Amino acid sequence: MYLPQSTQRLIELALAEDLSGGDITSASTIPADLLAHARVVVKADGIVAGLDVAAAVCAAVDPALQWQALVLDGAHVTAPTVVARLAGPARSVLMAERTVLNFMQRLSGIATLTARYVRELNGTQARLVDTRKTTPGWRALEKAAVRAGGGDNHRFNLSDGILIKDNHLALGGHDVAGAIRRARSYAPHTVKIEVEVEDLAGVQAALDGAADIIMLDNMSLEMMRAAVALVGDRAITEASGGITLASIRTVAETGVKLISCGALTHSAVSLDISLDIAS
Amino acid sequence: MYLPQSTQRLIELALAEDLSGGDITSASTIPADLLAHARVVVKADGIVAGLDVAAAVCAAVDPALQWQALVLDGAHVTAPTVVARLAGPARSVLMAERTVLNFMQRLSGIATLTARYVRELNGTQARLVDTRKTTPGWRALEKAAVRAGGGDNHRFNLSDGILIKDNHLALGGHDVAGAIRRARSYAPHTVKIEVEVEDLAGVQAALDGAADIIMLDNMSLEMMRAAVALVGDRAITEASGGITLASIRTVAETGVKLISCGALTHSAVSLDISLDIAS
Amino acid sequence: MYLPQSTQRLIELALAEDLSGGDITSASTIPADLLAHARVVVKADGIVAGLDVAAAVCAAVDPALQWQALVLDGAHVTAPTVVARLAGPARSVLMAERTVLNFMQRLSGIATLTARYVRELNGTQARLVDTRKTTPGWRALEKAAVRAGGGDNHRFNLSDGILIKDNHLALGGHDVAGAIRRARSYAPHTVKIEVEVEDLAGVQAALDGAADIIMLDNMSLEMMRAAVALVGDRAITEASGGITLASIRTVAETGVKLISCGALTHSAVSLDISLDIAS
Amino acid sequence: MYLPQSTQRLIELALAEDLSGGDITSASTIPADLLAHARVVVKADGIVAGLDVAAAVCAAVDPALQWQALVLDGAHVTAPTVVARLAGPARSVLMAERTVLNFMQRLSGIATLTARYVRELNGTQARLVDTRKTTPGWRALEKAAVRAGGGDNHRFNLSDGILIKDNHLALGGHDVAGAIRRARSYAPHTVKIEVEVEDLAGVQAALDGAADIIMLDNMSLEMMRAAVALVGDRAITEASGGITLASIRTVAETGVKLISCGALTHSAVSLDISLDIAS
Amino acid sequence: MYLPQSTQRLIELALAEDLSGGDITSASTIPADLLAHARVVVKADGIVAGLDVAAAVCAAVDPALQWQALVLDGAHVTAPTVVARLAGPARSVLMAERTVLNFMQRLSGIATLTARYVRELNGTQARLVDTRKTTPGWRALEKAAVRAGGGDNHRFNLSDGILIKDNHLALGGHDVAGAIRRARSYAPHTVKIEVEVEDLAGVQAALDGAADIIMLDNMSLEMMRAAVALVGDRAITEASGGITLASIRTVAETGVKLISCGALTHSAVSLDISLDIAS
Amino acid sequence: MYLPQSTQRLIELALAEDLSGGDITSASTIPADLLAHARVVVKADGIVAGLDVAAAVCAAVDPALQWQALVLDGAHVTAPTVVARLAGPARSVLMAERTVLNFMQRLSGIATLTARYVRELNGTQARLVDTRKTTPGWRALEKAAVRAGGGDNHRFNLSDGILIKDNHLALGGHDVAGAIRRARSYAPHTVKIEVEVEDLAGVQAALDGAADIIMLDNMSLEMMRAAVALVGDRAITEASGGITLASIRTVAETGVKLISCGALTHSAVSLDISLDIAS
Repeated sequence: MYLPQSTQRLIELALAEDLSGGDITSASTIPADLLAHARVVVKADGIVAGLDVAAAVCAAVDPALQWQALVLDGAHVTAPTVVARLAGPARSVLMAERTVLNFMQRLSGIATLTARYVRELNGTQARLVDTRKTTPGWRALEKAAVRAGGGDNHRFNLSDGILIKDNHLALGGHDVAGAIRRARSYAPHTVKIEVEVEDLAGVQAALDGAADIIMLDNMSLEMMRAAVALVGDRAITEASGGITLASIRTVAETGVKLISCGALTHSAVSLDISLDIAS
Repeated sequence: MYLPQSTQRLIELALAEDLSGGDITSASTIPADLLAHARVVVKADGIVAGLDVAAAVCAAVDPALQWQALVLDGAHVTAPTVVARLAGPARSVLMAERTVLNFMQRLSGIATLTARYVRELNGTQARLVDTRKTTPGWRALEKAAVRAGGGDNHRFNLSDGILIKDNHLALGGHDVAGAIRRARSYAPHTVKIEVEVEDLAGVQAALDGAADIIMLDNMSLEMMRAAVALVGDRAITEASGGITLASIRTVAETGVKLISCGALTHSAVSLDISLDIAS
Repeated sequence: MYLPQSTQRLIELALAEDLSGGDITSASTIPADLLAHARVVVKADGIVAGLDVAAAVCAAVDPALQWQALVLDGAHVTAPTVVARLAGPARSVLMAERTVLNFMQRLSGIATLTARYVRELNGTQARLVDTRKTTPGWRALEKAAVRAGGGDNHRFNLSDGILIKDNHLALGGHDVAGAIRRARSYAPHTVKIEVEVEDLAGVQAALDGAADIIMLDNMSLEMMRAAVALVGDRAITEASGGITLASIRTVAETGVKLISCGALTHSAVSLDISLDIAS
Repeated sequence: MYLPQSTQRLIELALAEDLSGGDITSASTIPADLLAHARVVVKADGIVAGLDVAAAVCAAVDPALQWQALVLDGAHVTAPTVVARLAGPARSVLMAERTVLNFMQRLSGIATLTARYVRELNGTQARLVDTRKTTPGWRALEKAAVRAGGGDNHRFNLSDGILIKDNHLALGGHDVAGAIRRARSYAPHTVKIEVEVEDLAGVQAALDGAADIIMLDNMSLEMMRAAVALVGDRAITEASGGITLASIRTVAETGVKLISCGALTHSAVSLDISLDIAS
Repeated sequence: MYLPQSTQRLIELALAEDLSGGDITSASTIPADLLAHARVVVKADGIVAGLDVAAAVCAAVDPALQWQALVLDGAHVTAPTVVARLAGPARSVLMAERTVLNFMQRLSGIATLTARYVRELNGTQARLVDTRKTTPGWRALEKAAVRAGGGDNHRFNLSDGILIKDNHLALGGHDVAGAIRRARSYAPHTVKIEVEVEDLAGVQAALDGAADIIMLDNMSLEMMRAAVALVGDRAITEASGGITLASIRTVAETGVKLISCGALTHSAVSLDISLDIAS
Repeated sequence: MYLPQSTQRLIELALAEDLSGGDITSASTIPADLLAHARVVVKADGIVAGLDVAAAVCAAVDPALQWQALVLDGAHVTAPTVVARLAGPARSVLMAERTVLNFMQRLSGIATLTARYVRELNGTQARLVDTRKTTPGWRALEKAAVRAGGGDNHRFNLSDGILIKDNHLALGGHDVAGAIRRARSYAPHTVKIEVEVEDLAGVQAALDGAADIIMLDNMSLEMMRAAVALVGDRAITEASGGITLASIRTVAETGVKLISCGALTHSAVSLDISLDIAS
């Protein structure tokens, strides 16, 4: 399995910050040659994510550790569920424990929160997408966790999608059509052009410029419905701004195709997971 | 100012994941030589943290960016407050924007949550401390954010403190006193010995072994009061396990000296902060 | 100016391979405190590229070096033209010389070759785009050099564009429409779907699947004309395979919108550039 | 087999630039557990190089990939020849494909061009050597490719050989003998002293200073013959400057011992190689 | 076995500085497929250390190398003793040789010197501890070597122990008690507070401030005895400054609990170890 | 000034191991905005080395630190001498202190020991050279320290010199002349060929093979004199093996041109240097 270098680097940072001086408690109390078995137990209902990175953490701590995942990322589990087994030198099991859990808890938390949002969209046409409001250093992992939770991904970074905002118009001195024209000329032809608009005049300008995607930013439900009607099939509509679990369904019912939500990554909390060691 | 290499590496990861292909929207719509001014505005009441890492992000994006913090980490602000200014090439301002905010929002969220817990301890003797349940790669930053919020730090990693848990006893085949003796013999003399116990017998064993710190794990309030009385001045007591905003005050009132709380870092959500650009 | 970390790493590799043991000729023959001035002279007609990376090389060798570019990337120069000046410690000028030239010569060679291809497209509607057949480690630099030469960029990597080829269909067991459907469901909505086809039936299948871009792979001119007619405005057409300076114009005259050409990066040769030092 | 760290770093850069976000086409169209077999086919007559780095690329993409080389670097093949086999997870095969080919095509191109130059020297005493005009980041690989093509290597970098040029004399204010004396005193005794000269007076000065190697820079054939006669066995002669396939044989016939040629690395084009996948 | 990243990085540096261009002697004289066996022989009486890092060096040079340690770190050997065996490709054995020996010789030298100091403490209550006067880049390895020699470790770095010196008092404008109070408030509660004092008044001030450890810096034996008496069980006493093999026993006999000695790491010389290859 | 990347990496390792968690003593006792001045004082007679790396350490700790060297590497100083000044934020001065001293003490110790050996050669023709028996990670620094002490450098690594030893002959199955021939054919022509021999027959064989340098390994003085006579001007002679301060002069008086000595780097001890801070 391919593990991106960014993930490898993040694992190295994580191990360095916890283990750079070794584990002096285990080193003083547990024999070097003792083996141990452990189970990773999810202790709250939710969606599991981060199993691959957990496996890589174990391999980085000690190649002698054996990790066996019992489910796949995206599995919906009810508590308690054993989702993986870990065996090997007891000291190494304990050295890996906290980092494995810290990764899995955060990523499973994101997947679980995403699934709650996705459930609200049941029966609508809207798809849920994430944003670039991710934890620095964690983007690939968190975007994969969103997918594990049933969401979709927006662009990954500033080079694989065009998103023209107010600042680009104001700073560049362009109208919407002019900015789109420049972007289409500059960007690879494989990339779509998205424009953020705040009112129906903006929507019309984006349509006139032949934007591929129109982001309806912080619009009222009423304006959003009008925008969706105005756009029709000429572009993809995306609702954005202040989406909550309470509001997402009514937003979806306006007919927008995409709803982007920063909270999936910036406001998820950990899912409760523990490592039980059998001596 | 000294910036630990782990932080520099994390910033590099963060910029690589967002900017490795450049910012094609800005590159196509904004002139290379245009300058811009921006303000970092906190838009919800809370505690600011992450100003230093934000400054370092800007320097890493472009040495021509000028960052000026208007407050210090730990400042309590009411919304809206401008906490920093950023000036320089407009393209660079936009390239730095998301990463600056992603860092500051998460760290300020932790500081803000910490301050809410600390407020609950008002008038008690207990101090709030964090745990190792931090975001992998972020430990130094998150522990600094806890301090910014008025909390204290527990050990940073597995080598700068001894914490003997059930697993160490079971796997090593030691009683508490034996494990303490081995740890004291192995660890640098600059490090204190902490033992995790679950009942009063455990407390007594830890006292007999002359533990420096006794962690009272998931005890009932009643048992905790008894433990505190039993320990007296012979060791530092630390309450741990399932501490919430609702429960922390009653825990503190048992007389424990320390209360450790994983939620400070694993369940904090972002503080709302934005970057307003003046064209 | 923002310099991507991949470029910084490549510069580090380049300096390490040439300078890891210092420059023993200069160290033994030139005083440490001697200053020197030098001029970067293009000695063959062509397009200049790589000025930014050259500046960064100099800064990495010695912060005391002063680099001043006299033209911008993309400048068409006739030989001889002084395109930059370099001043500073003589030893450092000599240590930077070869790496500066090796970068600029290759990148200017790519820009120059690209410009020759682009000239052939004069008066046609076709745009010239590059491929992923770039020098490993150099993609961002070489794609910028293609832009400097007047070409456009295809996708940068395997994550910022979908390109469905025969192998994907055969290995996945999909027909074209099925593969497109899966890709559209998986990929961020910001990314376009391109399909590689070899005959008119393939073109029709791609149209039926609503591909955004259709790559006409190694088609005869006749078939290509038919494909262009069949597609009309329903998708972007891209000619690919065996494009040469001799053939590109006739390919363009079939009416295709894009022509991709691996030779721009895998078969460019260096432009002659030298560093003249004034003692 | 030992793989220098510089090569490992270059492979990491190469994979990061192509795969940092994964391969979204394969991920969406090919099952994760599908296996595939592929053959690396050289499609033009030439010399193969880069097999070791190709093997390392595959290992870095996915340890489950199995690479089997069928020939050694330096093999002269006629098209089409299968030079290696690759088997493993289909997605990983596709992720490795472009980078494997980009490495092998460039290195085989250099080996092939070198062999063409070497063939011209048939029957003469001259040996062909490369220069430091290599692709930044690629020096070790390209110098190995020159050897694969039958050429020899000049010094690798600025610390493993002394080469005194005009600039060193002018900047240092030395005559040839003085510069040689200083270099001999400073450099490790394991390193030879080479001096670049442009006329017979320079040759005589280098001989007087007891240079080990004398580089005859851009001399006419007549002057070069006179220089060779003057030097005799007292030093190694090296012809340099503007050597082409058309001129190299006549240069060799002057009796020089070495002929250095930058074009081997700065003006080689890719050899045509492809990866054929059997589903 | 867990190998800290700092050690992995140091091994990379070590191999890069010796092997970045390969081993041209072996490459030219020894067949690529020849296997060899070698023995690591300690040729002077002493304590072995560095076996783990030696194993990791071999693995980094070539995964095909097989390393088998015959003793553990800390073994006291008399010369000559074979302490490890190495087998694999002959070229790789020779490439690993010098780096393996350079690591083992230095670390075994430190262990051996430490053991000589420790022997002097026989029958006293004092424990020998190291300092931060270690070879930059080598701290973890050298501190492990001190343990292998029978010594103990002082704090590893500036964050896992408090040591208040004159400079802190003078620069901060604090008296001893004030500085201790500030340190106790700032530092994690898992860390002890040590104060460096130079006379009995300082000892008393440290006691009044409830320091955990009192460093008696460069005191006369007489004063040290008085200090030990004054302190009693209220703190740990540590003698420091100018400790030599000749003086350490008399220092220990003052009754101090710890004696720290920079010479263990800054003045150890290599133990004689060689690699014997059987062809 | 150019600082090789290997040195930058070593400094990063050194700072990471001492400062990764900050300096909790200074952080708690010294105000963040306090400035301090310090002097680097050599407290034993010797040769100073490491000033450049010390400067780089300070810059890496905090760009606000100002370092001013008062002497150059290689200066012979009598104790006490102030060799550098350091000014800047007090916390940063204290954070840099130990690493600056650890570097300078070791490198100055090597330079000082080298100078003692060189003094013994006074009036002889022999030059003192170092070996590859350097501290892993420190080769460039230690070889520069040898030069600062008046010694010369042997080859830096396994690629910038040929040294044929018994193992190469035995493993490769070559006689001396055959091995030299192969090495000369493989290695760059800029590199000299050295052969290690143990008796006069070996010397003769090396001469017959036209070795450039002949290493006389562990020969008796008598045999060495005979070897020197036999060689005459046909090669450079190098004495090696068990050279001590007591024996080096008599070895030199045999007439050998070079004497290599591993003790310069593997058995040097620190020179006493301290940092005095003026509050």
